[in-house]
Amino acid sequence: MTQSLWINGQQQSQIDVRDRGFAYGDGIFETVQVLHGKAQLLERHVRRMKEGAQRLGLLSSSVDQLLAELRLIELPDEAVLKLTLSRGVGGRGYTYDSTAGGTRVVMLTPKPTYGDQAESGICLRVCDTRLGLNPALAGIKHLNRLEQVLARNEWSDPAIHEGVVLDYEGYIAEGTMSNLFWVKDQCIYTPRLDRCGVAGVVRDFLVERFSQAGADLKVGLYELASLRDADEVFICNSLIDVWPVRQFEDVSYQSGPVTQRAMQYLVEEYQA
Amino acid sequence: MTQSLWINGQQQSQIDVRDRGFAYGDGIFETVQVLHGKAQLLERHVRRMKEGAQRLGLLSSSVDQLLAELRLIELPDEAVLKLTLSRGVGGRGYTYDSTAGGTRVVMLTPKPTYGDQAESGICLRVCDTRLGLNPALAGIKHLNRLEQVLARNEWSDPAIHEGVVLDYEGYIAEGTMSNLFWVKDQCIYTPRLDRCGVAGVVRDFLVERFSQAGADLKVGLYELASLRDADEVFICNSLIDVWPVRQFEDVSYQSGPVTQRAMQYLVEEYQA
Repeated sequence: MTQSLWINGQQQSQIDVRDRGFAYGDGIFETVQVLHGKAQLLERHVRRMKEGAQRLGLLSSSVDQLLAELRLIELPDEAVLKLTLSRGVGGRGYTYDSTAGGTRVVMLTPKPTYGDQAESGICLRVCDTRLGLNPALAGIKHLNRLEQVLARNEWSDPAIHEGVVLDYEGYIAEGTMSNLFWVKDQCIYTPRLDRCGVAGVVRDFLVERFSQAGADLKVGLYELASLRDADEVFICNSLIDVWPVRQFEDVSYQSGPVTQRAMQYLVEEYQA
Repeated sequence: MTQSLWINGQQQSQIDVRDRGFAYGDGIFETVQVLHGKAQLLERHVRRMKEGAQRLGLLSSSVDQLLAELRLIELPDEAVLKLTLSRGVGGRGYTYDSTAGGTRVVMLTPKPTYGDQAESGICLRVCDTRLGLNPALAGIKHLNRLEQVLARNEWSDPAIHEGVVLDYEGYIAEGTMSNLFWVKDQCIYTPRLDRCGVAGVVRDFLVERFSQAGADLKVGLYELASLRDADEVFICNSLIDVWPVRQFEDVSYQSGPVTQRAMQYLVEEYQA
């Protein structure tokens, strides 16, 4: 498949340069994995999008309209589906028109070809770039992603797959493009995301599944020492699913049973 | 005059929806006042743009190219000139192509019609939205402006002209679209902007002029109490120039000699 783009339901690739998405990063997006011809975990993506819309004052009905437009598109067997809702053109300066429907974008691109990271694990580094604390924006997958852009471009070594990003106070927040989990003495840990960071859909799914299964799971503020001290570490997002961490600085980990269970939860979900 | 738009030197109004300016707010901009047919304080705008480009890893030569394109455009007597440089289309995910020239936008719009704020002064409020602390982005006029969008849209009362925005720790940062100065016992105060906020071009100009004139000027971290306790308060930006603050919560101020001097510095600069 090649790339396909729809803007406000029309197959096209250009937007007005005065769009507030371009001017201010004023909007939200989702990156969804299409597998077995289905947009996986779509209800969770929609839930996050609606929460983001509500918190930013975007119209919830625009999310519905975007979904209606998506339903008219025949999905390939495998692809990356990106959904974007910006505030569109309008308003003066930072003031927006709260009745404007915004700009809706559906983009389908081929799924990237990954290596054997899911089997052999990845190398993780720590980024110098930190995330500012802002509860008003925390968790939302909004279009203000300069912190992630800076963090991701700190390294170019292809042997390093992801960077841990700390918050302004030095607590672990997330990866540049993923969320983090680790295990110590059977307990599963993942950072709080109500002060900064993106509350990932796969993270949300895994927290729910682990909790339903009665696992001991803690969400909190953790320092790097707890990551170094872990028995297992893995990262997740909607495209890579789950990748075990093999190496973090001078610490090596084995892909253990919790990581395997996380992978299995996703396999089951995708086959459902 | 009507609106005029140039993208990469061509008169047009559409950009590729995959532009990283739209996807991540990955870029910088300047809002310049055109007065007497001249882009005022342009050297300072260019200096900030170059510093922003350098800190975000955008090509400095793209700023030069944008300026070359601007020089081909005949400026009206009065207008708002907006210059934007985004990272353009390219790269995978957050990773960017460090050799890409980006997207350059020149936009001319009519100058907004303000009332008599410069004479009679404005009403100021405090915003609930706070600015996350991030020295890596502080000062830059980048395209990640959701904090300002949220802060500005907290109120709709047209009698209130601006909101004070505090940083995450509760110190005064700036206005939603302006910088702040105040005076107490002949000393001029303005907040530090190396932790968050936008280092305004007019602020920069005024700090320089006041300092050259031997004024007592302090740049630091200040709480709201110091604003309430001030003898004079004013806000500034590249379009409004200087507006005295008449009312802040239950405190009233007179437009005093320092505010008048700030206005006068700009009048002299614009006539030069």
